Amino acid sequence: MRIGIIGKGYVGTAIGSGLSSKGHSVKYGHRDPKEPVSDAAEWGEVIVLAVPHENVEDAAKNIGSAADGKVLLDVTNAINENWDLTVGFSTSAAEELQKLLPKARVVKAFNTVFAKNQSTGKLGQEQLTLFVASNDAKAKEIVMKLGSDIGFDPVDAGPLKSARYLEPMAVLLMTLAFNLGMGVGIGFRLVKA
Amino acid sequence: MRIGIIGKGYVGTAIGSGLSSKGHSVKYGHRDPKEPVSDAAEWGEVIVLAVPHENVEDAAKNIGSAADGKVLLDVTNAINENWDLTVGFSTSAAEELQKLLPKARVVKAFNTVFAKNQSTGKLGQEQLTLFVASNDAKAKEIVMKLGSDIGFDPVDAGPLKSARYLEPMAVLLMTLAFNLGMGVGIGFRLVKA
Repeated sequence: MRIGIIGKGYVGTAIGSGLSSKGHSVKYGHRDPKEPVSDAAEWGEVIVLAVPHENVEDAAKNIGSAADGKVLLDVTNAINENWDLTVGFSTSAAEELQKLLPKARVVKAFNTVFAKNQSTGKLGQEQLTLFVASNDAKAKEIVMKLGSDIGFDPVDAGPLKSARYLEPMAVLLMTLAFNLGMGVGIGFRLVKA
Repeated sequence: MRIGIIGKGYVGTAIGSGLSSKGHSVKYGHRDPKEPVSDAAEWGEVIVLAVPHENVEDAAKNIGSAADGKVLLDVTNAINENWDLTVGFSTSAAEELQKLLPKARVVKAFNTVFAKNQSTGKLGQEQLTLFVASNDAKAKEIVMKLGSDIGFDPVDAGPLKSARYLEPMAVLLMTLAFNLGMGVGIGFRLVKA
């Protein structure tokens, strides 16, 4: 598939390299005027939003109607400089994004995985779980397939509202990695009997 | 250790059977006047609070000063009849419990594990992770050791504030189990490189 990735930081490039290594085509859109956000968004069949949270609103404006009817994969975490969530409980970053781009088929995933592990979906020999939430069943299927292509174990995490649970999980992971000294070589796996 | 367990439902008895099978002594306190909450709370070196969320305030009153200076392990999830969280984001069930019993050494753990798996800490051959959060380092150590005795892989999840992340994780698990048909044979494992 053609994947337009908005944001060319650690997260965007990790997901991009994971997808392109499996035969998907990737185009980045970011601040560089040579690679405009709007170009990548228009070109992509799937759009991945991988910008720092404070840039989401700007990015959404630049994406605009290019996202209408397309899968818009939200991999962001709405955290401030203290790694505290800035939204939650009664809403989520993903649900707020859906309000900004109401015609996009917003999917939440990848936010509970460190960039380091986003290009393989694995830690050592162990598959990490990709929790995938969306109100659009077909969009969710597409992202689960992309996750599986990369190497993840994709799990249907229900409606977009589940982002309210997935976003706090990312903060737990950051707490473990950076405050408790575990580093970024950690990730979640859903064990199934 | 002497473990006073408040609540004799699925969760309380699962944790109780896991601990007693490893040589710990367990006494239950619940609605039955023959097994009063206050007796179990006074007798226990560690008190486990395993009542439905709507009964937490009553239980805290009945525990009262018996919890002063003791480890009070909060395994509850503050959810309503729709499995929506009733607290979160800027606080958590665990932090609210700490306000009710300010002299207790509150620890959050076990809430991200289904009762079915709480007595072994395992799903099949795989260890589940026990995320343990508290502001009291020594209390956290005690609960991590109890978790390890049962069979879990205990992980220090930081201060009690991390309950804000652990409690939403439980709702994700319930969503997967009951809304998405995965059932209760699932659990979280923190993979480490």
